[in-house]
Amino acid sequence: MKPLTHPHRDELSIEAVLDAMANPIRLRIIERLADGEELTCSTVLPEVTPSTASRHWHVLREAGILFARREGRIVLHQLRRDDLDARFPGLLDSVLRAVRTAPSAVSGGRPAGRP
Amino acid sequence: MKPLTHPHRDELSIEAVLDAMANPIRLRIIERLADGEELTCSTVLPEVTPSTASRHWHVLREAGILFARREGRIVLHQLRRDDLDARFPGLLDSVLRAVRTAPSAVSGGRPAGRP
Repeated sequence: MKPLTHPHRDELSIEAVLDAMANPIRLRIIERLADGEELTCSTVLPEVTPSTASRHWHVLREAGILFARREGRIVLHQLRRDDLDARFPGLLDSVLRAVRTAPSAVSGGRPAGRP
Repeated sequence: MKPLTHPHRDELSIEAVLDAMANPIRLRIIERLADGEELTCSTVLPEVTPSTASRHWHVLREAGILFARREGRIVLHQLRRDDLDARFPGLLDSVLRAVRTAPSAVSGGRPAGRP
């Protein structure tokens, strides 16, 4: 099983972070992780195939946007808010605000019943 | 001569803006336009071939990050700060801050003598 590697806070690059964020599915993942919860792939993207989902989570982890850890057979993901806020102050909040005020761009597929 | 088209403020998409920003040359262009000056391609990217430069300016214009206008044989570009700030409050400033505090990522090629 491959180790889940993460760039160090000091290695985060603004280009890589912007590039990883520039996708509606990945923005949706970021928005769902924004409250600090640890989530699995399938919780956030129930309608996406496992391989597609896996690629998006991989891009976000490699860019340093989230931490992933294995717990038994599942992988739990958490937003690296502290690292992002330390390196790029205001970026995450401005992107989250944009996502939430333009829900048509990144919504859809959210499990029914979630507020 | 093709018209220089621009998306309306309401048409700006967070994905397209992030995607257009996610490039070291384009971040350098954005940083050079940040003080509101109107600049030509060659002012900002003297070391880049005209076709490469043109592509980068095109991407930024299409995403709604800058306005371009012809004046005789040259094209002048200006950052759409008001539109970006209105649609995505805080985004531009956080990106500019990141660029300026990580100059290695996007510096280089700046004309000698500029402060």
